[in-house]
Amino acid sequence: MKLIIQLTKRLAYAVILSVLSFQLLAQQAVVTEAQKETATQLIQTALKSELGFSIVESLTTEIGPRLGGSEAEKRARGWGVKLGNRLGFDKVSIEKFSMPFWDRGHLHISLTSPYQQDLYGTALGGAAASKKNIDASVVYFRDIHALSAVKDDALVGKIAFVDGDLLVKSQTGAGYGQANQRRRIGWQHAQRGGAEALVVRSVGSDSHRFPHTGMMSKNEDKWAEIPVIAISNPDADHLRRLHSLGKPLNMSLHSESKWKGEVSSGNVILDLIGSEKPEEIVLIGGHLDSWDLGTGAVDDGAGVAITTAAAALIAKLPKRPKRTIRVVMFGAEEVGLLGAFAYAKQHKDNLFNHVVATESDFGAQTIWQLVSNVNPQATELMDEIAKVLSPLGIVRGGADVAGGGPDIIPLVELGVPTIRLNQNGRDYFDLHHTPDDTLDKINPDELAQNVAAYAATIYMIADSDVELKSK
Amino acid sequence: MKLIIQLTKRLAYAVILSVLSFQLLAQQAVVTEAQKETATQLIQTALKSELGFSIVESLTTEIGPRLGGSEAEKRARGWGVKLGNRLGFDKVSIEKFSMPFWDRGHLHISLTSPYQQDLYGTALGGAAASKKNIDASVVYFRDIHALSAVKDDALVGKIAFVDGDLLVKSQTGAGYGQANQRRRIGWQHAQRGGAEALVVRSVGSDSHRFPHTGMMSKNEDKWAEIPVIAISNPDADHLRRLHSLGKPLNMSLHSESKWKGEVSSGNVILDLIGSEKPEEIVLIGGHLDSWDLGTGAVDDGAGVAITTAAAALIAKLPKRPKRTIRVVMFGAEEVGLLGAFAYAKQHKDNLFNHVVATESDFGAQTIWQLVSNVNPQATELMDEIAKVLSPLGIVRGGADVAGGGPDIIPLVELGVPTIRLNQNGRDYFDLHHTPDDTLDKINPDELAQNVAAYAATIYMIADSDVELKSK
Repeated sequence: MKLIIQLTKRLAYAVILSVLSFQLLAQQAVVTEAQKETATQLIQTALKSELGFSIVESLTTEIGPRLGGSEAEKRARGWGVKLGNRLGFDKVSIEKFSMPFWDRGHLHISLTSPYQQDLYGTALGGAAASKKNIDASVVYFRDIHALSAVKDDALVGKIAFVDGDLLVKSQTGAGYGQANQRRRIGWQHAQRGGAEALVVRSVGSDSHRFPHTGMMSKNEDKWAEIPVIAISNPDADHLRRLHSLGKPLNMSLHSESKWKGEVSSGNVILDLIGSEKPEEIVLIGGHLDSWDLGTGAVDDGAGVAITTAAAALIAKLPKRPKRTIRVVMFGAEEVGLLGAFAYAKQHKDNLFNHVVATESDFGAQTIWQLVSNVNPQATELMDEIAKVLSPLGIVRGGADVAGGGPDIIPLVELGVPTIRLNQNGRDYFDLHHTPDDTLDKINPDELAQNVAAYAATIYMIADSDVELKSK
Repeated sequence: MKLIIQLTKRLAYAVILSVLSFQLLAQQAVVTEAQKETATQLIQTALKSELGFSIVESLTTEIGPRLGGSEAEKRARGWGVKLGNRLGFDKVSIEKFSMPFWDRGHLHISLTSPYQQDLYGTALGGAAASKKNIDASVVYFRDIHALSAVKDDALVGKIAFVDGDLLVKSQTGAGYGQANQRRRIGWQHAQRGGAEALVVRSVGSDSHRFPHTGMMSKNEDKWAEIPVIAISNPDADHLRRLHSLGKPLNMSLHSESKWKGEVSSGNVILDLIGSEKPEEIVLIGGHLDSWDLGTGAVDDGAGVAITTAAAALIAKLPKRPKRTIRVVMFGAEEVGLLGAFAYAKQHKDNLFNHVVATESDFGAQTIWQLVSNVNPQATELMDEIAKVLSPLGIVRGGADVAGGGPDIIPLVELGVPTIRLNQNGRDYFDLHHTPDDTLDKINPDELAQNVAAYAATIYMIADSDVELKSK
């Protein structure tokens, strides 16, 4: 009896041990020690590499501003193809699409009462030209809520100015979406009120004398029929102070912005073909176009540079990872995610093969968090990746956080799983969509940390057998 | 004998003690305890007062940019007179002078090769208009030394671009004078070389996308006959990178800046008449004009506000100090110290009565040092003042440091003693002469520290009998 009990106990221990061993093996199987070692080696290499910075330096210097649909964006595609070939990608291509072209044109805007003073403004994307020089009194609205309550035809013959507050800086960019309503839909209320034009306080966290541009939203498929101008935060402060003194305000403005018909744009695709499952695609990227005011260094030269450099470092490994790594340099993002929608349409029959998709498009400061939205069985892989990234100061965030970046939205809608390496966005809205988005704003060391995190993460997913999609 | 020795000893002690007492009394006489108490009280009041900030807020908001000789500068003089009367000055006046008016006009400047990109530039003061649109290849000069070595007629048909380096930030503004040579005299070499125009890297410590304007120097009483344009530091960085890649550069530019004949300007004078020696004048001030790009908050709305508020706090004391305190709001400083020279000329027969002169014209950050250039016997008074200021974080600097501020230069040349309350200028050349010189850049607490230091200092000098001039 005693023996039986002892044997039973031993058997029980053995079972427990084998279960534990199996679990241990199973855990090891998610990412092998060899894979972890390679990922760590990629991190070390990336931190010492200047490749990422040299890419964004080249794009911003040799191409400059590159508005979606412009001749400059076309030159940027040529640059992307050349870069992809030089860096050893296996397949490099351009996928064209057609789009309507909006041109900023020349703007003059000034305060004319209580005295003459030039204002620092720029048209918002999609705005109409002024038919003639507009010289009108200004109706002040404290915020978008006040403007949205305006009665129909209450603004006939007037210029509406919608104020707001300086965007509070934050790591996550929280607050931008809400503040951005005045840029997005302000025109719909101003136009309903019969205003000659709308002027909005820039949506930005800086106190510098330049405006932030950005696209407006359509209303039932129609763009604004009036000029819509963003002015800098210090200019808006100035108008607010004058208004609070009870001074009647007048402005003069003349804007030439307009739609100019259909043009051609495209996405640049750089593939590292997988060694075992070439049909399975791990998609990363950034957008190649920029607003025309700056040279698009942080938005989104940085994203193009980070993801291209990460894949290029993986390309130097002795062997390709199992799955295909695809870098997409999306075209025409700023003007409505046009490249992203074109990609989703052109690849709609193959999206089931897209293992995961993610974009870098939130500047060039360090990554602090890995979030994911993959099937529960794949969460463990993400946890293991986060452990490898932790020496970079990156923590594991939520496992059910939707969204892989703006250009990934159309893919998410079609069921492609996402991850995101969240960047510190504290300074992002100081620069975003302004003339100040230039190369000097990028810290090469911070950019290299991004490249390191992408290289390690993408390598581990691409060399894995784990399915990320929900069954 | 013993007694005699003892008496002698006692006598010796008495003599020593009386000498010490006399010295003590003499030291006390430089600034009395009552004066120190009043000065300390002024400091306490000033630190709690919002008067200084309200003055610069009013000037920048209600008047706005105010170029020397402009209609706006005239409105500013009206504002100054009204302010002086409201604050209880005993005598308020305007002293007019005539001056030539330079107008910036409209500028367009862009890179046209290797590709089209707008540049952020502005004309330098005194520059000529382009006779037509200039479209020319660019000759790159690494710095002013390289440009100054250019051979005669070597630049015919070309645009010269003179690069340089980002101004290093410093507490004292060291480095500005030398860097500023390319703004001051660059045109003389470019014109000698036969260039169509000169483009210079802005002299500033910021990396923002706006240029710094500023006056050029005349050459043998002649102004530049070519357009001279400053471009922002990020734009200059961009050109430098393109040049280093061996890309041939072309620019297109059109500038309307020009001289427009004689106009009227003036200095605003606010006097607190001295109670015992009204003919003796302690002169403080700032300049009322600003460049036209910003609203002249730190240059020099702050200086006007600091010195006017300091005198206004002294005006609230039960009794006027012995000497007259004069606040001068100088006109047309930026365009060549024209108000300062007019003042020196108009008051030349009375300058012997100017006890001391000093100007606040280096921004709005805290004061950290008191320097002086007065007669050696008066140095003790300065040392005593520095002790009263020390709770404000102000240290005593040199007793033979020439210069009381730009507008004081003509008075120094005519023998008027000076002191200076040196401000921390670390951020000054981020803002100086740019569109970014706006009210939001001023910290009200730092401005109040300035008012406190001026009020205490000026009170102690004005209520003193010490002669500051060399005999």
